[in-house]
Amino acid sequence: MIKFTIITLFQEALEPYLKTSMMWKAVDKGLAEFDFVNLRDFGLGPHKSVDDTPYGGGDGMLLRCEPVFAAIESVKAKDPDAKVILPTPVGEIWDQEKAKSFAKDAHYIILCPHYEGYDERILSIVDYKVSLGKYVLTGGELPALIIIDSVVRLIPGVLGGETSALVESFSDGDNLEYPQYTKPYDFRGMKVPDILLSGNHGEIAKWREEHSGKA
Amino acid sequence: MIKFTIITLFQEALEPYLKTSMMWKAVDKGLAEFDFVNLRDFGLGPHKSVDDTPYGGGDGMLLRCEPVFAAIESVKAKDPDAKVILPTPVGEIWDQEKAKSFAKDAHYIILCPHYEGYDERILSIVDYKVSLGKYVLTGGELPALIIIDSVVRLIPGVLGGETSALVESFSDGDNLEYPQYTKPYDFRGMKVPDILLSGNHGEIAKWREEHSGKA
Repeated sequence: MIKFTIITLFQEALEPYLKTSMMWKAVDKGLAEFDFVNLRDFGLGPHKSVDDTPYGGGDGMLLRCEPVFAAIESVKAKDPDAKVILPTPVGEIWDQEKAKSFAKDAHYIILCPHYEGYDERILSIVDYKVSLGKYVLTGGELPALIIIDSVVRLIPGVLGGETSALVESFSDGDNLEYPQYTKPYDFRGMKVPDILLSGNHGEIAKWREEHSGKA
Repeated sequence: MIKFTIITLFQEALEPYLKTSMMWKAVDKGLAEFDFVNLRDFGLGPHKSVDDTPYGGGDGMLLRCEPVFAAIESVKAKDPDAKVILPTPVGEIWDQEKAKSFAKDAHYIILCPHYEGYDERILSIVDYKVSLGKYVLTGGELPALIIIDSVVRLIPGVLGGETSALVESFSDGDNLEYPQYTKPYDFRGMKVPDILLSGNHGEIAKWREEHSGKA
């Protein structure tokens, strides 16, 4: 069983995705579990504040240590082995190899950071810093879903007997998938390459090899 | 006004994210518009089928041309200038520069592909092939949201007067953000570097420069 606990201010934005399709299938089969911790519950003062201005000047509000540590510790109190993942631009780039290494019997806490930044000391309670790519988002919510989706689909049994075209795209380094075609044979004059209809498995394999990564 | 039309089988999984926070703010201010087209509405036969098996053998089901072209053309009938974006592993890597180039007055149609693959001829109706990174997902839905989020936040007025720490992270090539700190000064013995409390703007700037990308 793999479990993800998501610490966020936006549970309502994320939950529907996890109740859809493949992710829900994984839960239904007892192969995965998802739950949420509302960071606001650990906010400070009457406004349940979770952020404040940076020392040394600068714009933007940073996530404070106290609510973040309290939220994470509330999860670890029940499961001391849970590991903390922080999506951050300074993390290691996420890829298929990383997804595979996370796809095991484990409990991960994903902290969704504030888009404006976080107090550096938060890193002391983080096990994995993960960067999804060289672009800026409004928060860590989409990175959290990407991590979960890419990992959960690799758990044996989640995809069932299905093996898929894209499944293999990155399994062999940068060797991308070959072009694929389905019915109809002729779509508005664009025809399926005849080799694929030849029934000659050797020639088909050769054609696909030659066209890999050139799509 | 920037507009995104999302072609998907999973509207209910995506819509809540777009109704949250910054994305909703952009809509509320009249700066962005989102709508959905249900690919199933253009499916074939009594089961409204949108996919079929690959020619030449292989596992998995591929998105067929007919429903995809019909869905896209239903949008283009009303707006011929709309551009089509396809998230795919064989696309160009998405980054902050790309996000900036998309952040303008335009109408984008994002086609969320089936995780198992799509008929190659679909590329003939696509303007931009975009890869979010070297990992495999169950579908194009999360890539669609990442593209939208990273672009919409760059539309002038969406962030309001706010400039943020992470906003700048990738604006200068690979020059990542410096460590940031907020209250409290002392959290469980971990203290804010004294330089940040010095009030010496020159020294603070120098410290931040030295610590950029090393967080």
